[in-house]
Amino acid sequence: MGTSEGTHRTERSLTPEQAFGITLRRIRLRRGQSQQWLADKSGYHRTYVGLLERGEKSPSLRTIFDIAATLQVKPSRIVKAVEQEFSRAQGKSH
Amino acid sequence: MGTSEGTHRTERSLTPEQAFGITLRRIRLRRGQSQQWLADKSGYHRTYVGLLERGEKSPSLRTIFDIAATLQVKPSRIVKAVEQEFSRAQGKSH
Repeated sequence: MGTSEGTHRTERSLTPEQAFGITLRRIRLRRGQSQQWLADKSGYHRTYVGLLERGEKSPSLRTIFDIAATLQVKPSRIVKAVEQEFSRAQGKSH
Repeated sequence: MGTSEGTHRTERSLTPEQAFGITLRRIRLRRGQSQQWLADKSGYHRTYVGLLERGEKSPSLRTIFDIAATLQVKPSRIVKAVEQEFSRAQGKSH
């Protein structure tokens, strides 16, 4: 077991959903687009996009592909960024 | 190869789920493992693993991460392979 886990915050326990949400939001904002735009273009409800960006829902592979197509980025690029979000969160824990 | 596909015209419309299923099955077999092994190790039911491999269910991001961890491959590598499965299917269509 790790040494400094005890008192520490939640970074270590970033979920895949939270990492996805952070990633999605970053890519969307980089495109200068709103949640409403992403929702309209991808065919999902804006509420659902909000849930995804807050890491409260686990997107299906289908959703990842749809959203990636809308944002014109490869699904694997999104997932790679999600992995990096994880490592970043873990690196922070000291 | 190729000619035996004859009357089958479904390649072009390979779904993300089918591409994932093909990919998952290939990685699992490359590890020399059974569906039961993958199910036990990843915490999913063998029936569900079967559904995934047949492309009948869209795995959630969480499931992709769990299965990737079990197979000791990066989630983004799996998704990249899924993308390649797509292009392969489309390239075949003539």
